[in-house]
Amino acid sequence: PRLKLLFVTNAGLDRLAPYDWLPPGVALMNNRGTHAGKAGEFGIMAVLMLANQVPAMVTHQRAARWQKLWGAVLANRGITIVGLGTLGDAVAAHARHFGLQVTGVRTTAAPHPHCDRVVATADLDGVLPGTDFLVLACPLTEKTRNLMDRRRLTRMPQGAGIVNIGRGELADQDALCDLLDNGHLSGAVLDVFTPEPIPAGHRLWTTRNLVISPHTSADDPATYNPRSLDIFLLNLKAYQAGQPLPNLFDTVRGY
Amino acid sequence: PRLKLLFVTNAGLDRLAPYDWLPPGVALMNNRGTHAGKAGEFGIMAVLMLANQVPAMVTHQRAARWQKLWGAVLANRGITIVGLGTLGDAVAAHARHFGLQVTGVRTTAAPHPHCDRVVATADLDGVLPGTDFLVLACPLTEKTRNLMDRRRLTRMPQGAGIVNIGRGELADQDALCDLLDNGHLSGAVLDVFTPEPIPAGHRLWTTRNLVISPHTSADDPATYNPRSLDIFLLNLKAYQAGQPLPNLFDTVRGY
Repeated sequence: PRLKLLFVTNAGLDRLAPYDWLPPGVALMNNRGTHAGKAGEFGIMAVLMLANQVPAMVTHQRAARWQKLWGAVLANRGITIVGLGTLGDAVAAHARHFGLQVTGVRTTAAPHPHCDRVVATADLDGVLPGTDFLVLACPLTEKTRNLMDRRRLTRMPQGAGIVNIGRGELADQDALCDLLDNGHLSGAVLDVFTPEPIPAGHRLWTTRNLVISPHTSADDPATYNPRSLDIFLLNLKAYQAGQPLPNLFDTVRGY
Repeated sequence: PRLKLLFVTNAGLDRLAPYDWLPPGVALMNNRGTHAGKAGEFGIMAVLMLANQVPAMVTHQRAARWQKLWGAVLANRGITIVGLGTLGDAVAAHARHFGLQVTGVRTTAAPHPHCDRVVATADLDGVLPGTDFLVLACPLTEKTRNLMDRRRLTRMPQGAGIVNIGRGELADQDALCDLLDNGHLSGAVLDVFTPEPIPAGHRLWTTRNLVISPHTSADDPATYNPRSLDIFLLNLKAYQAGQPLPNLFDTVRGY
């Protein structure tokens, strides 16, 4: 009955939805901010892997096949980052370093310092044909579930690649596998899946040009606990001073 | 008999050695400089893959095994880059962006703008124990052949990783496989091998925690020919003006 603050050490709290279990008057906080450094590096690594055709290379390696495959540099190619929170912001900053043309996608089209342009989620369809690399880095909500459905995945150009560091349910996973199998997409680096762990015998294990990371892209054990404590204490200070909580979780919007 | 200039569209000319076939008075030029952009991005991608444990992840994926594996951010970790020519310089510049502690290794210990320190090749042994990531980016000469022999590879700390974008013969390939198999090295991303193509049934195909790239790390088809022509024409201009050739190949030192 005396509970006032509830701090969860995850950033995405979709697995706790719906939030009707939350007692009135209790502030729910997530751990957003902890994951910036690690997720940003994983994200740009994944994009570099797509540009260098690493997903195809490891597929050939599985078959013990030596086959020349050439990649390309990132400069001036188009990256679209869906979600400009902690993860998307960090990926966008690195993308700028490599000279990518950065399109951000978020709820409203407000400008962002690391993006060449930002469009609202409602305008996602328009930017997909010019997207060489798509990075999914948004929370899973009822508005983003299956955002990249088969139709939208197919709107990406022949040879495009995809990275998912958000949630598996953001994309139609079966369509994604189909488009890798038929070569429309040249590669994928995925950290999240439906379901997790991936069951034995699942088609994901043998889909070509796919690299599977076991949902650890954003976690750095060396920094996770100290960073999480810093964030919690920052919120505790704000609470004691009667100020807004930086990590307050909005149960209506879902992030 | 009227031949004056011989421009080769490779950077490493080790496969043409010994150079006793070169007629006196003919200037041999290589294509160094062409590969900077692509090789630099491949190199830092490979380092990010080591830090994120991607070689182990794709090994698990081959076995359809879901196993959590955590990586770490690059900041403040130690990278040693052997060779500070076009390739090493480009990797070093990216390494700085990610906050790595950059040690360069080259013939003489002259400072380099993207390195925190530079040591002479003769002092390589001293820096290996502090090396989290080793990048081989030097030419193959009689001085660098088998530079990373079994003894030196073993001097790297437990869990270190290795990238080779130079030549397969720079390292003892069998020792490298042994150290991956026994877990002393956590991963390797190799673009060059002995021999190439890797024959069917070779142990490289099944060595764990190894990612195989088919010797294409430095080549970007979209830019290779225009860049090569720019470099050749630069040398031709210098020749016509009676100035030193920027890409003159020194057959005694071998690069």
